[in-house]
Amino acid sequence: MGVPGAFDLTDDAAVLDVPYDQQLVVTTDAMVSGVHFLPHDNPADLAWKLLAVNMSDLAAKGAEPLAYSLVTALPKTIGDEWVEAFAKGLGEAQRQFRINLLGGDSVSTSGPLSLTVTALGLVPCNRMIRRKGARVGDALFVTGSIGDAALGLRLVQGALTQPIPEGDRAYLLSRLHRPLPRLDLVASLRVFGTAALDISDGLVADLRHLAVTSKVRLQVDTQAVPLSGAALRLLVGVPALRRVVLTGGDDYEVAFTAPADKAEDIAAAGINAGIKVTRIGKVVEGEPGLDLLGLEGAETDLGVGGWRHC
Amino acid sequence: MGVPGAFDLTDDAAVLDVPYDQQLVVTTDAMVSGVHFLPHDNPADLAWKLLAVNMSDLAAKGAEPLAYSLVTALPKTIGDEWVEAFAKGLGEAQRQFRINLLGGDSVSTSGPLSLTVTALGLVPCNRMIRRKGARVGDALFVTGSIGDAALGLRLVQGALTQPIPEGDRAYLLSRLHRPLPRLDLVASLRVFGTAALDISDGLVADLRHLAVTSKVRLQVDTQAVPLSGAALRLLVGVPALRRVVLTGGDDYEVAFTAPADKAEDIAAAGINAGIKVTRIGKVVEGEPGLDLLGLEGAETDLGVGGWRHC
Repeated sequence: MGVPGAFDLTDDAAVLDVPYDQQLVVTTDAMVSGVHFLPHDNPADLAWKLLAVNMSDLAAKGAEPLAYSLVTALPKTIGDEWVEAFAKGLGEAQRQFRINLLGGDSVSTSGPLSLTVTALGLVPCNRMIRRKGARVGDALFVTGSIGDAALGLRLVQGALTQPIPEGDRAYLLSRLHRPLPRLDLVASLRVFGTAALDISDGLVADLRHLAVTSKVRLQVDTQAVPLSGAALRLLVGVPALRRVVLTGGDDYEVAFTAPADKAEDIAAAGINAGIKVTRIGKVVEGEPGLDLLGLEGAETDLGVGGWRHC
Repeated sequence: MGVPGAFDLTDDAAVLDVPYDQQLVVTTDAMVSGVHFLPHDNPADLAWKLLAVNMSDLAAKGAEPLAYSLVTALPKTIGDEWVEAFAKGLGEAQRQFRINLLGGDSVSTSGPLSLTVTALGLVPCNRMIRRKGARVGDALFVTGSIGDAALGLRLVQGALTQPIPEGDRAYLLSRLHRPLPRLDLVASLRVFGTAALDISDGLVADLRHLAVTSKVRLQVDTQAVPLSGAALRLLVGVPALRRVVLTGGDDYEVAFTAPADKAEDIAAAGINAGIKVTRIGKVVEGEPGLDLLGLEGAETDLGVGGWRHC
């Protein structure tokens, strides 16, 4: 499952070609048991998520996946069965994201299981989309639906006590455990995006990151934030969950700004890629930060929100 | 301390140029407290060693350092003072190895401190030196001196009870804590080397790796293995330490094969780079593996040796 220059992982390093008209994009994400996932989580799901969160960073930057390195720090309690299931999940995710392993390291630890991926991607020269770059007058978009993973986490934690249809339950758990990085939108993002990032810490926190780095103010219509059917059905019964949806993490959707007059082209590109793209606000003059419009009651202090690890 | 394309670490990814006539070399090494180092080890030394062991892999592959990503998993017991000392050591190592940080991740852990670096280097196209490539008739060389780090570790562990001059003590500890990757020999290695690796697991174990991957037999004159003055003085008193020297790890010297008729050029290149290069054997016909010549008494079972983590 290695790239050609990985020499079946029998050397001290791998060697890779970067085409002359491309640049290398590098991102790293680590996951620690008890912090980013639970010790009894399914190993195949973990493998998927580990690769997916790194691919999501590449996607949001406009980069195509190239290869990745993996470091596993395994406690002695991890058995062969776990390792086999993990490797199988990794293979499945590799095929899905069209990326191969180039090497890494495997160490033992007296502490919790931890997993680190450094992902390499390719982007045409000077075309990486940064957090910086949003311009006054741009429109603000997000892909997919927001808050499903946070609701899935509440479900796992037993914090949702109302009856939930089996299909909604499966959907929310899938959104938590098997995020789908928006790789199919990468080419269009590079065409239209002026600034972008993936939503990992939560919509409010990540939009704030984009606003601060771009030194602009974002006016966000919170009523326009796209919700899945499963999320909507939950919110009808417990309106307070809207707070979870707007601040919860782990969505791995992409938030981006683009010229407002390109909104129709962007909608068409989304349809073409099979990815819903929703306009949720605009870039305005003012202090770097967010205006959250359409909040109700106790939600109005949401501006400080963001996702905290468990 | 970041590279230009790291955007002061304010984005989700870094972007890097790879010149059109170069390839990217990627290597990853992780270090876990209690496995690869001791919890009370000096943080500046740790930072140095973390970068050095990764630079050593690049050097042995004939690659020039480009940039690195860092993941720190820190337990809550780690205070600001530790982090400051670690960052200072990292800065010092970066200047020494002429490499810059391109990003990474920082996570908390309930377990031991662990540190992961993915290092990127550049090599002219198709010139990475592999473990594979040694040819019958080649000579076998090592840089520097062998076994100092293993003796330094014995010193730290209190396993050396004989009187040791203060200068020797400082030298051995420096070899353990502040290894010097042989970056200054990289250009010559690319010219002469047919196969190479760095000595991290121990001379015997790593030469075996090279022999097996190259599918050749290495005849090693163990009496020719270069020892430092400090090591020689210790071995005069305790000859049994020769076993430690030949099998101990953490030297981060380079072992390589090269055409035997280039021995003089290689010696000159070493002198030019200020790095001692010693011929210690040759590549011969036979089953992939090692012939260790010049062993005495109980040393003759050394063939199975290799470094075990503490």
